[in-house]
Amino acid sequence: MEEVRNNKQVIFKGFITGAPKESDMELKEGKIKDRVPSGSGGVLVKNLYLSCDPYMRGRMREYYNSYIPPFQPGSVIRGLGVSKVVDSNNPNFAVGDFVSGMTGWEEYTLIEDTEQLRKIQTKDIPLSYHVGLLGMSGFTAYAGFYEICCPKSGEYIFVSAASGAVGQLVGQLAKIHGCYVVGSAGSKQKVDLLKNKLGFDEAFNYKEESDLDLALKRYFPSGIDIYFDNVGGSMLDAALLNMRPHGRIAVCGMVSQHSVSNPDGIRNLYCLVMKQIRMQGFLQSTYLHLFPQFVDRMTDFYKQRKIIYIEDMNEGLESAPSAFVGLFTGKNVGKQVVCVSRE
Amino acid sequence: MEEVRNNKQVIFKGFITGAPKESDMELKEGKIKDRVPSGSGGVLVKNLYLSCDPYMRGRMREYYNSYIPPFQPGSVIRGLGVSKVVDSNNPNFAVGDFVSGMTGWEEYTLIEDTEQLRKIQTKDIPLSYHVGLLGMSGFTAYAGFYEICCPKSGEYIFVSAASGAVGQLVGQLAKIHGCYVVGSAGSKQKVDLLKNKLGFDEAFNYKEESDLDLALKRYFPSGIDIYFDNVGGSMLDAALLNMRPHGRIAVCGMVSQHSVSNPDGIRNLYCLVMKQIRMQGFLQSTYLHLFPQFVDRMTDFYKQRKIIYIEDMNEGLESAPSAFVGLFTGKNVGKQVVCVSRE
Repeated sequence: MEEVRNNKQVIFKGFITGAPKESDMELKEGKIKDRVPSGSGGVLVKNLYLSCDPYMRGRMREYYNSYIPPFQPGSVIRGLGVSKVVDSNNPNFAVGDFVSGMTGWEEYTLIEDTEQLRKIQTKDIPLSYHVGLLGMSGFTAYAGFYEICCPKSGEYIFVSAASGAVGQLVGQLAKIHGCYVVGSAGSKQKVDLLKNKLGFDEAFNYKEESDLDLALKRYFPSGIDIYFDNVGGSMLDAALLNMRPHGRIAVCGMVSQHSVSNPDGIRNLYCLVMKQIRMQGFLQSTYLHLFPQFVDRMTDFYKQRKIIYIEDMNEGLESAPSAFVGLFTGKNVGKQVVCVSRE
Repeated sequence: MEEVRNNKQVIFKGFITGAPKESDMELKEGKIKDRVPSGSGGVLVKNLYLSCDPYMRGRMREYYNSYIPPFQPGSVIRGLGVSKVVDSNNPNFAVGDFVSGMTGWEEYTLIEDTEQLRKIQTKDIPLSYHVGLLGMSGFTAYAGFYEICCPKSGEYIFVSAASGAVGQLVGQLAKIHGCYVVGSAGSKQKVDLLKNKLGFDEAFNYKEESDLDLALKRYFPSGIDIYFDNVGGSMLDAALLNMRPHGRIAVCGMVSQHSVSNPDGIRNLYCLVMKQIRMQGFLQSTYLHLFPQFVDRMTDFYKQRKIIYIEDMNEGLESAPSAFVGLFTGKNVGKQVVCVSRE
């Protein structure tokens, strides 16, 4: 006999214009059938860890020309997560399997698009890391660093939002690659983490710098070869002034501009010509052919303790809205994850 | 016995901050010895055609961190030109040879750095074209189009300042390559030239458009694959909104920003991420290994009438300051050259 379960959910209330607020989402007590419809090919999962990512802000506005469609007002927020299969109508997934992929911000989700799900094979890596180190954040760092930055050993690399989900890995990959790495972040705690735990050569708190150009000149007296830009805005403008000839800028996200309807104007693009800079935006989805290689290498790096991963874990689905909102004020230290359940 | 010749010169008066004015330069009656010092390895040339190039504006400010040093106040303006050797202390150059390279804005110049001079071999191409079609402008178009834009047949390409020294060639190379080409320019005359003489598929007068974004949407309803940017500023901002996924922007010069101490802020760089755009500044000097190939191909195109070249020729060294100043107000139609003497 078919049963129905209680299912707590985080609902997207409606399109927004400025920075996301907790009140843009609401908690609801929903219901979900505890069996997958036969013939659907779907799976019913219990959500364990949910990933909070800045790109999700882009789905909160009514904009039909993006690479990803907007959320529907009144429906559950969707995002990447790690989940456990509790019922299956698909021969590729058995009850008890752990999967990562697109799911809902709720306790249980019926996933019909199983093509995008990845079955988690290894037990060597903490489960939650499959939305971070081995998930989209990690793969963004990997593809951006190797494919867009074209790094050479000995080069000078600057990473903004350096303790974030992507930045912390870019810096560590760059160190493994033999680069000199400086990161910026928004608190003393994060700067300490970069220098003392993540192995950055230097780090600074951008909020304590009255002139970002001078700050970069202090840390890069002979200039920057690679800027891995996670923020855009005034940091990008200052970096442009400090790039070396044939420098590369990987443009990844521009989190400082996400919530701004009238974004900062970048004034120093003339530097692109004089210094022959290549500036390139990218999405990790273009490089999926490298994903298996990425998983193997990252797993090896992790097991060899060449890479560590800092997570900021919020407990409980109820904490998801504040965790997400915190991304845009720099509240998170490391990759922001919400733990819905540990098993 | 050593003689001295009269030598009219255009002198750079001093560093400037805004747009160049004629009064930033002055005409002077100088003198020059009519023999090259023996043992110097130099050549004395009679200057025939002088090239007016926007990059020269960059040498008029006191800025020691550029790819090229500033002009010295009180000394003759230097630029590219076509000249005739009238005395030589160098076995590679004979009296009567025509050369192109860096010379002075004066009737006669003693050139000691002969390494940078190119002897003009062919008589098939008008002499003055050696500072345009076959000179730095032409090579900038060639290297920028093939090396930076990575064009594919059938792609949609937009060229700004399209009737200028570089733009007119980019458009014609793109047509030869099988692209769909639209150009922008600042007068009806230039637009007519683009459509009726230079073979652009479409062209528009940007001064008659109140909304550049809408103008580009009209000419590129399905977007732009390649933007060859000669101007920067608001046109770049509008182009960013209209790029297709994996679009490329070759950044060449930013003439609209040359004279501006507080350049326009570019607000739409977030498009780089969503559309995975590559934006790259370049200098032709990086690609000099391609120069011989360029000369051969351009000469062939020209002889086969696949490419034509529009020059704006001012007569007399006296006209050089106004010719140069006119570059920054869009006065020139085609490549701006000053004819000092025809032989």
